[in-house]
Amino acid sequence: MSGFVSLVGAGPGDPQLLTLAARDRLERADLVLYDALVSADVLALAPRAQRFYVGKRGGRTSMPQETINRLLIRAARRGRRVVRLKAGDPFVFGRGGEEALALDAAGVAFEVVPGVSAAVAAPALAGIPVTHRGAASAFVTVSGHDERAWAPVLDALPPHCATIVVMMGLASRREIAQRLLARGWTAVTPAALLVAASTPRAHTWMGTLGELVLDGAFMAGDRGDAGTIVIGEVVRVGQQLAGRQSAPRDGGRESDRRELADVATAPAVAVRAVAR
Amino acid sequence: MSGFVSLVGAGPGDPQLLTLAARDRLERADLVLYDALVSADVLALAPRAQRFYVGKRGGRTSMPQETINRLLIRAARRGRRVVRLKAGDPFVFGRGGEEALALDAAGVAFEVVPGVSAAVAAPALAGIPVTHRGAASAFVTVSGHDERAWAPVLDALPPHCATIVVMMGLASRREIAQRLLARGWTAVTPAALLVAASTPRAHTWMGTLGELVLDGAFMAGDRGDAGTIVIGEVVRVGQQLAGRQSAPRDGGRESDRRELADVATAPAVAVRAVAR
Repeated sequence: MSGFVSLVGAGPGDPQLLTLAARDRLERADLVLYDALVSADVLALAPRAQRFYVGKRGGRTSMPQETINRLLIRAARRGRRVVRLKAGDPFVFGRGGEEALALDAAGVAFEVVPGVSAAVAAPALAGIPVTHRGAASAFVTVSGHDERAWAPVLDALPPHCATIVVMMGLASRREIAQRLLARGWTAVTPAALLVAASTPRAHTWMGTLGELVLDGAFMAGDRGDAGTIVIGEVVRVGQQLAGRQSAPRDGGRESDRRELADVATAPAVAVRAVAR
Repeated sequence: MSGFVSLVGAGPGDPQLLTLAARDRLERADLVLYDALVSADVLALAPRAQRFYVGKRGGRTSMPQETINRLLIRAARRGRRVVRLKAGDPFVFGRGGEEALALDAAGVAFEVVPGVSAAVAAPALAGIPVTHRGAASAFVTVSGHDERAWAPVLDALPPHCATIVVMMGLASRREIAQRLLARGWTAVTPAALLVAASTPRAHTWMGTLGELVLDGAFMAGDRGDAGTIVIGEVVRVGQQLAGRQSAPRDGGRESDRRELADVATAPAVAVRAVAR
């Protein structure tokens, strides 16, 4: 009679990047509580569920975390199968840990279903490996949402010691680039901005850290889209591969083939990526 | 007539953590070249493909990367649909970038299909979020395979500035813990060792950095299993949640419910995790 909560990662946006487990949980869900960056295509996989938007974005007022926790607990106590659906992975900047602790404290049974995080997938879909022999043997992932969170970590990193991946970094790209330059990173360090990766609205920009500061990396992306910044030598791999990823030649379903939009401002490299 | 190569992430081991895209590519593959940590259950999803093991492990002799590149190129030129299947994500310590560059240089069409990386999923399945409010707002991912790769990065990090995730870290856990202590990390820093996460052989150990050095974290894991180390305050969330993740109460297929083996040595916390 008692319900169950699945904390599920929805991946970066493309429903094909959901896990089999995530799709299974969506298909069986009675109730789905979802965040802003979860795509309509993904939600469509939960046809029998009630769906509630509980998202938060940048400066906007949003549902307090405590309210979300209460909704999860109440629904589970009423015997419902609840999916808490988060963009990417539920335990990467998703406050999934807080929800898990709240569910645990309330005695509600739950599970975590990991997902494909944009921290790795957004660069990969633009041909950028976060690690690459001779370029980087580590990567540091921070959130660009709050300076109090990213500044101490980026200040502490010696220049060029690892690839830096900034999630939710669109709005803070100039401040972050300025901060790194002030800390001794060189202006010619390759950098990329990946907006709405794996979705039909995707934009890729590649250039340098210096250009990021100059706002050379202006992106036409929707303000509501996810933006991932990658900084480091690994971006050169993406520049070399720019536009070379292809749709499968045969056997691919036509509907799966979609080209992602280009945005590039000189002297950056234009990239045409394909989600699959 | 020309073939196609998909560089595919197989996720951490459990086939339910494959993406829909990965399963699609496996089902349609003519040839699968796979690595050591890819599970038999995942390979079984490519029933019509020839499958070749091209894995590398620790000290053992293995197929040179150039040979793998040549196999990929030759098969694609013969018109075959090739899946290059890598544990986790193909672009996280997977040399996927090198393969992409080789395919590109040879004029072979390819794509990258991101996967669920154990860097995030192994901790999550043990209840450990790599970021958590008040505990860590960033995480650093390194490979434990080669000291020349991890030492410069870990040496550079100020103590306690972020969560550290060490992939392929089983063999080097003591050296890494010693190094961090020498750099000023405190002995009571929480630490976890996650072996074969998401598979039936999974072990979870949680304790402290000091215990890792004392080899208190002896793990009975198969030498061939993947081991992920997590170091930082976020491990406390996993300790609080220890054993509380559950199998779905109803609707879950019985075959999906499997309990992961326990290993814990006092004074560490024993954890019972469930893959789904």
